[in-house]
Amino acid sequence: MRFQPYRSPSTGREVRAVFFDTFGTAVDWRTGVARQATAFAAEQGRELDAEAFADDWRALYQPAMEAIRSGTREFTTLDTLHRENLDRVLRRHGFDPERLGAETLEKLNKSWHRLPPWPDSVAGLAAIRRRYIVGPLSNGNTSLLLDMARSAGLPWDVIIGSDMTRTYKPLPGAYLRTAEFLDLSPGEVMLAAAHNSDLQAAREAGLATAFIARPTEYGPGQAADLAPEGNWDLSASGIPELADLLGA
Amino acid sequence: MRFQPYRSPSTGREVRAVFFDTFGTAVDWRTGVARQATAFAAEQGRELDAEAFADDWRALYQPAMEAIRSGTREFTTLDTLHRENLDRVLRRHGFDPERLGAETLEKLNKSWHRLPPWPDSVAGLAAIRRRYIVGPLSNGNTSLLLDMARSAGLPWDVIIGSDMTRTYKPLPGAYLRTAEFLDLSPGEVMLAAAHNSDLQAAREAGLATAFIARPTEYGPGQAADLAPEGNWDLSASGIPELADLLGA
Repeated sequence: MRFQPYRSPSTGREVRAVFFDTFGTAVDWRTGVARQATAFAAEQGRELDAEAFADDWRALYQPAMEAIRSGTREFTTLDTLHRENLDRVLRRHGFDPERLGAETLEKLNKSWHRLPPWPDSVAGLAAIRRRYIVGPLSNGNTSLLLDMARSAGLPWDVIIGSDMTRTYKPLPGAYLRTAEFLDLSPGEVMLAAAHNSDLQAAREAGLATAFIARPTEYGPGQAADLAPEGNWDLSASGIPELADLLGA
Repeated sequence: MRFQPYRSPSTGREVRAVFFDTFGTAVDWRTGVARQATAFAAEQGRELDAEAFADDWRALYQPAMEAIRSGTREFTTLDTLHRENLDRVLRRHGFDPERLGAETLEKLNKSWHRLPPWPDSVAGLAAIRRRYIVGPLSNGNTSLLLDMARSAGLPWDVIIGSDMTRTYKPLPGAYLRTAEFLDLSPGEVMLAAAHNSDLQAAREAGLATAFIARPTEYGPGQAADLAPEGNWDLSASGIPELADLLGA
């Protein structure tokens, strides 16, 4: 019997590709950055509140992209934004970036290239990939997402970085240009994400949507994004459950 | 012992990524197109010289891109160029494209998405991928290369289509923008190709180079590209031999 792809109620189309938010949905950025910050501090013979360091660094992410989204700054990669933000975070945690070597700073900045997958990500993606095209739909640049895929073992079919769409989520171009590179209509592409705001923007751009619960992304005290807050097409406790719901 | 990547004599750099010409180097376009043209003709209750059909279609490929390379036509995808050329090839072989349905034409046009790999390609790429980033460096658009990868089982890490670089080989931007998306210097990227002219352009753009012999790409009477015609970094009888030469 021929496989029947999942038909999205919201778009009315059969889904051909399932694209994943990465930071928080496919990989655990907080644990990954904290671990590498701890190693950095140890190399410097210092101590560090590594989870706070990761949270502080991540908190500078949205404001940094905002200048590009609003058009007051020309597009630049997330690696560059992370590197700029790193100086501020280091100072806040008592490190002087000017006294650290370029190689040390570069290695620490590339923490975002080497994040661990959530325990269910690799198997779940492999299952979905049997029936659907899979890829990241992230604000990360291509080389970041590529290094992440190789180190975490994420079996993407294709990587369309934000340096290819030249825009940042949640602007509609991020979703629409991804669909365009795939030669699919937006309604044939599903965004799977742990963040309700990302799903809202994807829906407004015409994509199918799936919520993946990641209740500890922001640590044990996480207060937001614990449950779906919209009428998303699908909602799953992890990527393997999403695979089941997609019939993959 | 830590793996020592291959150092390119021509660029003086260690190679981090090996990118492959696809049509002719990774996949056998002539056999693939001929097979699908035969099936098309059978569906129409007709006969066709399928190899000549494939050769004729392929021969229109370079001239069609030339208008874009020279700047007299805005960038458009290879799928679009193939579709335009298809009408001409069909007429030359006695078919009236106006009397064929859109679906039939679209399916035939997508022959290029479903080409068979050369027998050594999948195993050779998998071997190289253990130590190096691998991907296509082709004039194909992303969706074409993605469909090809899924149908032929080509284990690319990343797909950077010509619709991402917005230019066609052998213009230098095709090579340089690929390296840029990888965040590598051109000399850290190797082009592997069965075509001496492609390698010449890659070298001029600063890439490392490897010749892969594909002596039947153009059929049994092939007269060109039977051997390396430049002082390329490496020369191999197939992709597994290239893997050996790279120490992968």
